[in-house]
Amino acid sequence: MEKFLSLIRRSWKIGLLILFTATGFLHAEETVEAAAATAPSHLPVDFIWLLVTGFLVFLMQAGFAMVETGLTRAKNAGNILMKNLMDFCIGSIAYFIVGYGLMYGASKAGLFGTDNFFLNKANPGSVDGLWEYASWLFQVVFAATAATIVSGAMAERTKFTAYLIYSFIISLIIYPVSGHWIWGGGWLSKLGMIDFAGSTVVHSVGGWAALVGAIILGPRSGKYNAQGKPRAIPGHNIPLAALGVFLLWFGWFGFNPGSTLKFSNVIGHIAVTTNLAAAAGALMAMFTVWIIYRKPDVSMTLNGALAGLVAITAPCSVVSPVSSLIIGGAAGILVVLSVEFIDKVLKIDDPVGAISVHAVNGAFGTLCVGLFAESRFAEAAGFSPVSGVLFGGGWHQFGVQLTGVVSVAAWVLVTVSIMFLIIKHTVGLRVSREEELKGLDIDEHGMEAYPGFQIIN
Amino acid sequence: MEKFLSLIRRSWKIGLLILFTATGFLHAEETVEAAAATAPSHLPVDFIWLLVTGFLVFLMQAGFAMVETGLTRAKNAGNILMKNLMDFCIGSIAYFIVGYGLMYGASKAGLFGTDNFFLNKANPGSVDGLWEYASWLFQVVFAATAATIVSGAMAERTKFTAYLIYSFIISLIIYPVSGHWIWGGGWLSKLGMIDFAGSTVVHSVGGWAALVGAIILGPRSGKYNAQGKPRAIPGHNIPLAALGVFLLWFGWFGFNPGSTLKFSNVIGHIAVTTNLAAAAGALMAMFTVWIIYRKPDVSMTLNGALAGLVAITAPCSVVSPVSSLIIGGAAGILVVLSVEFIDKVLKIDDPVGAISVHAVNGAFGTLCVGLFAESRFAEAAGFSPVSGVLFGGGWHQFGVQLTGVVSVAAWVLVTVSIMFLIIKHTVGLRVSREEELKGLDIDEHGMEAYPGFQIIN
Amino acid sequence: MEKFLSLIRRSWKIGLLILFTATGFLHAEETVEAAAATAPSHLPVDFIWLLVTGFLVFLMQAGFAMVETGLTRAKNAGNILMKNLMDFCIGSIAYFIVGYGLMYGASKAGLFGTDNFFLNKANPGSVDGLWEYASWLFQVVFAATAATIVSGAMAERTKFTAYLIYSFIISLIIYPVSGHWIWGGGWLSKLGMIDFAGSTVVHSVGGWAALVGAIILGPRSGKYNAQGKPRAIPGHNIPLAALGVFLLWFGWFGFNPGSTLKFSNVIGHIAVTTNLAAAAGALMAMFTVWIIYRKPDVSMTLNGALAGLVAITAPCSVVSPVSSLIIGGAAGILVVLSVEFIDKVLKIDDPVGAISVHAVNGAFGTLCVGLFAESRFAEAAGFSPVSGVLFGGGWHQFGVQLTGVVSVAAWVLVTVSIMFLIIKHTVGLRVSREEELKGLDIDEHGMEAYPGFQIIN
Repeated sequence: MEKFLSLIRRSWKIGLLILFTATGFLHAEETVEAAAATAPSHLPVDFIWLLVTGFLVFLMQAGFAMVETGLTRAKNAGNILMKNLMDFCIGSIAYFIVGYGLMYGASKAGLFGTDNFFLNKANPGSVDGLWEYASWLFQVVFAATAATIVSGAMAERTKFTAYLIYSFIISLIIYPVSGHWIWGGGWLSKLGMIDFAGSTVVHSVGGWAALVGAIILGPRSGKYNAQGKPRAIPGHNIPLAALGVFLLWFGWFGFNPGSTLKFSNVIGHIAVTTNLAAAAGALMAMFTVWIIYRKPDVSMTLNGALAGLVAITAPCSVVSPVSSLIIGGAAGILVVLSVEFIDKVLKIDDPVGAISVHAVNGAFGTLCVGLFAESRFAEAAGFSPVSGVLFGGGWHQFGVQLTGVVSVAAWVLVTVSIMFLIIKHTVGLRVSREEELKGLDIDEHGMEAYPGFQIIN
Repeated sequence: MEKFLSLIRRSWKIGLLILFTATGFLHAEETVEAAAATAPSHLPVDFIWLLVTGFLVFLMQAGFAMVETGLTRAKNAGNILMKNLMDFCIGSIAYFIVGYGLMYGASKAGLFGTDNFFLNKANPGSVDGLWEYASWLFQVVFAATAATIVSGAMAERTKFTAYLIYSFIISLIIYPVSGHWIWGGGWLSKLGMIDFAGSTVVHSVGGWAALVGAIILGPRSGKYNAQGKPRAIPGHNIPLAALGVFLLWFGWFGFNPGSTLKFSNVIGHIAVTTNLAAAAGALMAMFTVWIIYRKPDVSMTLNGALAGLVAITAPCSVVSPVSSLIIGGAAGILVVLSVEFIDKVLKIDDPVGAISVHAVNGAFGTLCVGLFAESRFAEAAGFSPVSGVLFGGGWHQFGVQLTGVVSVAAWVLVTVSIMFLIIKHTVGLRVSREEELKGLDIDEHGMEAYPGFQIIN
Repeated sequence: MEKFLSLIRRSWKIGLLILFTATGFLHAEETVEAAAATAPSHLPVDFIWLLVTGFLVFLMQAGFAMVETGLTRAKNAGNILMKNLMDFCIGSIAYFIVGYGLMYGASKAGLFGTDNFFLNKANPGSVDGLWEYASWLFQVVFAATAATIVSGAMAERTKFTAYLIYSFIISLIIYPVSGHWIWGGGWLSKLGMIDFAGSTVVHSVGGWAALVGAIILGPRSGKYNAQGKPRAIPGHNIPLAALGVFLLWFGWFGFNPGSTLKFSNVIGHIAVTTNLAAAAGALMAMFTVWIIYRKPDVSMTLNGALAGLVAITAPCSVVSPVSSLIIGGAAGILVVLSVEFIDKVLKIDDPVGAISVHAVNGAFGTLCVGLFAESRFAEAAGFSPVSGVLFGGGWHQFGVQLTGVVSVAAWVLVTVSIMFLIIKHTVGLRVSREEELKGLDIDEHGMEAYPGFQIIN
């Protein structure tokens, strides 16, 4: 607890420092950039693209469910599946009643939206109505992605009721507000921040919330011995986890290329950079873990693919295919080192590596826009023709990106900390040690995931 | 057996009563409504929408296979998978040679179609030919859905040969004929019945057939003790079942929005209502079972999502998003109560809850058109601007819907009863008790689904 | 080893014989045919079709991974998953840097392409750039399919390092060169060979490589007893295998209909023939194995569906739906006989039946163009109006097809043999017998796929 509070306190200080510095040297040249994200489209082909890619993103829910189930123990499988299902159900409703309006409604001082709750501005049968509905569908599957990330880091010890409450709040308020800043016409979009498909908006929001959750919860029983040495707790079903990664990769072809929100000449380019980054991420994670542990570990390689995908999500439309290989490859190395660091140095227990995949690589990918962007791609993607540091653009864009990363992290770390502490001291956040040892399926849900199979947990 | 016959006899009487009453007060104002379902489309974008959504619906076969396998025992897993695969294979052929023509061919007295067998009217390379082929592909995956529903309720005790025969007959004749009444320009469509994507046409057809099958087969050995008290027989692989539900939900984005059969301004609205109903269904099923049994049961929650999806299938295009939450939520409550009622009061053994999900909620959803329809949505979706009871439209549309529900139920209950009784007295419908105890995989297929794993059945 | 060399020697002789004969009677009438495969498209709807179908083909990677994992033993599950993941990652990079240019770059004497390496001709933001990127994405998932097929036949005994090397080489050179001959404007396309979606280009390339690999590796320990009698080694997870087949079937709706590379009036027809062939393949494989072994075997039926899909891949656009039923059905029979022949007569150990599914049926399907093509379909699909032997077209087209089958087989058998022999004598191709018995997961990856489950291998 003390560790957590001091960590939060330190993050805050560093965050504010960077925030003010960055804002300082930026305020002179505020530009409006993010129009692409909210402009309505009008051709049938645009809507079909938006809806079909949205459907693919929905399937990522299955992907997350399979990854998280596969990488944890059999005795908690029913529980983690329920959490993955429920965050989407609860998130859908929260995002319908308030979240979407807060994120994309008319902006109040660049901080949050103020109308279109319950989709009440949508006009049935008209093209504008179609835009509102299709856009909501596309956005709700993104909101749910942010929420579902948290469940992985907090797996195998979180109370089910607590989970229902916090996933509701994340989709209702926390995700939409920072989302508004970047995608809803808010202050970060006005600064010129580029987060094309959501390395920060979606992944790092989920990742920072996961970090806070994992710290407040504490590690699983038996994860660290008396000397603080971590013990590996292997996932119970690697084929499910691998299936999950394939489903996520597939869904990412909706996530990134679909984030054009309508047909665009850049959708092919985005599909290519997305795919190359994932491939490079898996490959480099495998080599990294191979060098460190002398074995090409499967779980880590799977996480490498996801790390590459998360990292390319922000810059996918503004970097070259060769840069995407570099970004993805670096993400693959980074995820291995980060998992090790969090597990062994920080001693935070993240059963599936969600913090490393989504927070660390979400931040890294967002910064990569400031490093690897090329004006010819940025312009084609509808942004102003910015270039990153490595392509002669100087540090301006990097500063903007950093401002975005830090302010979103600050927003999430603070609000989520408050939320989790309130939950902890009211309904309770963690199951009893006895229940944890028995497995959450028995006490929380009165069932087993694999009755009939002989299982030693 | 006696119970079954008396049940059928009673259903018939009630059915005919309602049918004549309803038809009575309706015959004065027959209108042609269902044009949307058969009008050819002519733009590339229309065909891409129709085909891509059809592909998604195909994936529902995987969803059903995973749900049914996960919710039954390991010793029958190979068998249930084969049944799910085979009903699609056999159904594809049956629907190609006769079924499609019977459903969409030129109407004979509003009762069945009479041409386009073997797709022989399709002209290769022309736009009309494209329409015929794409339409067949879209419709065959719907036909297969109806057939596959039956396998769940009859799981773990049905002879494989019997299964092959009856799934052929369902796709060849039973499904197409009632389908013709509603979607093929038949008498129910002329009455003005609205079943947008098939709560009745697809789901309740499968559900009523499942009901008859489960009754004629009788319960699994050991399901009810000497006092008639039911014993829970838990499914062997909950992660597979959960994966199946995610795949079905994903496929439903093809099922409902794709049922426009071409690009339309309402596809976004349909995706939204579909998603919200599923979310509300899962949520309310969870709360209902939580209240009754003090635990949020996983299988029941999964069925709640499916119940919401089945219920919104008929009204998805004519109700508001808020109504879809209500419809889906009610379906979630209904499925729990129905499963309990069928299991404990009727003592019908339905291993996966197929009757409650598909028959009960298929009927409920179809009636919801008569309750929740709003003229602004109905008009936008290409129907005449009807309103349901709750939106000031009076009881007319409800009567039409009820007529449809009852007549399709009557059609299926009668024809399927005849079919199953003939099969029972010829090739036999049920495996021997010995075979059932050993598991169907060993005797029917000479294999095990999980060799190497230690399993206690 | 001797057996292998003599087999190769014989194939060579027969191959050359047929090649020269066929080329002999064809050289008089070389025509340019394959324009459809490389012509850029220019409408938004074309690109959306190309990308979405490409995404579906990507999901086939998950399908192959599940099929191969399910049909092999639990102790090797992590290894086979890694191989399936890695061939796509490595293949993506190999195909990006060299493969795509070699396959579709400007042709050098009809033998291979010579430019567009690293996609360096793609112009961001333009329609031409979109075409290059989208086309690459579509083609890379095909390339990966060819590579991944090999892993099934070589499962449970191949060194992981060796696997990484050879899948790189296949995607870098071997697949692209023969692909260039048929799809890249090379000599076979000029001869008029029709392989619409890749029965030969993709499947038989993978299948022949699998054949060579399985021969050079030798059978798994315990597969054949001292008398050479084969022992069945059942797959450990049939539900995963079945899921894989459903995913592959789903992906094939991208594979075949998407191979128009743009919107076309024939996409509906292709979806229909694809689906019917798969259905007939599963059905006939089931009946065949039922007759031979008195039981409808699940794995064989699953392979029957895949065999039907592979066989219809070349002729899908040029044959009637009724012919597709015949082709698929024949493929279903063929795959059973071929598996038996390879297992019992040739005594080659192919754990998942990849050689029979992909090489045998790839060749068969390609020849079916020469038997079943009808001019009305061929013309609609943009080919010259050829007819097959059974539709009065004479033996010309059959000869062309045979030439293609034989020359691609020769190319692959020779280059892959050289490659595998080099690998065998450098890094080594096969794990030690001790490692094989323990399972590859432990020694190669330091993990278990199902820790916690009681497993007897």
